[in-house]
Amino acid sequence: MQLLKDRILKHGKNLGGGILKVDGFINHQVDPVLMFEAGKEFAERFKDVGATKILTAEISGIAPAVATGYHLNLPVVYARKHKPITMPDQVFLTLAPSHTKGRTVELIVSPEYLAGGERVLIIDDFLASGATILGLVRLAQTAGAVIVGIGALVEKVFEGGRAKLTPLGVQVESLAAIASMEGEEIVFS
Amino acid sequence: MQLLKDRILKHGKNLGGGILKVDGFINHQVDPVLMFEAGKEFAERFKDVGATKILTAEISGIAPAVATGYHLNLPVVYARKHKPITMPDQVFLTLAPSHTKGRTVELIVSPEYLAGGERVLIIDDFLASGATILGLVRLAQTAGAVIVGIGALVEKVFEGGRAKLTPLGVQVESLAAIASMEGEEIVFS
Repeated sequence: MQLLKDRILKHGKNLGGGILKVDGFINHQVDPVLMFEAGKEFAERFKDVGATKILTAEISGIAPAVATGYHLNLPVVYARKHKPITMPDQVFLTLAPSHTKGRTVELIVSPEYLAGGERVLIIDDFLASGATILGLVRLAQTAGAVIVGIGALVEKVFEGGRAKLTPLGVQVESLAAIASMEGEEIVFS
Repeated sequence: MQLLKDRILKHGKNLGGGILKVDGFINHQVDPVLMFEAGKEFAERFKDVGATKILTAEISGIAPAVATGYHLNLPVVYARKHKPITMPDQVFLTLAPSHTKGRTVELIVSPEYLAGGERVLIIDDFLASGATILGLVRLAQTAGAVIVGIGALVEKVFEGGRAKLTPLGVQVESLAAIASMEGEEIVFS
């Protein structure tokens, strides 16, 4: 998606160590028009997978997932990292190592909103090592749901997450795939 | 906003103790079409306040704030509760007591995205005691920005938050104002 790639080159920053700062339009400040366009693009790419629900992880996955849900007219569930008091005692919970946080985070979904037989499209901001997305996959599978597609705004190809998703046999899409981040450069695939 | 009130009556749940569960369409599972309509309504109500930026708090404020930002064509900043590694060392930070979490949370904004002279519209999911919104107000004022309006999807009138916002002298809007939550009832103002 050229609009997103242009934005990454203009306002993204390679902080070194494989860390891409996109706080100006995705991760802290959000550009709603860009998110809406990204959602439209995901909706187009996944229009034939027969999804019944979109699953993402708080926090930064919410904006692109809601934009995609708007265009596909599907509800969006975001896995929570802390169980709120409104959630029942019995939940689906998995652990996922967080690269950028340097620790393991919990991903929690209530069985009220993720049921057996659902066809789940996963949308997140980043596909890097794949750890968070694989956590979402485990949650959905534990609920008896089927994964039908995976989309990420930005893919860090050099972290190899895509290969870990291949065994799922589903369509995996990213809107900006970064092949390398040497020095201060950002090079798309 | 009738659409939201109908939804609260149909799928909301009064858990007692003043706690309203809206996990099925706002706080865990999100209805993107409802959020988009709410954003349109906020955009209409705040179209004349001259906002240059929308400010919200992660997590549940993100969806309504991004929807509003889409309709007003404004960037959205969400205050973070944990400082990510991509954020500079010098930040704006305030503490806000969280009613539903039973503890104090940090609200953090990077000076990169909240500058002096900005005209800030605050959008959040709930206006209850007003503690979170007042935290956002302090962050914006510390940055030298001006608050020009405050909007919440749901107002719990009986928690009295609105009175705390009155001294700001700005327009305060809620799309569903709940007067009381006795027993299992949900009574709108």
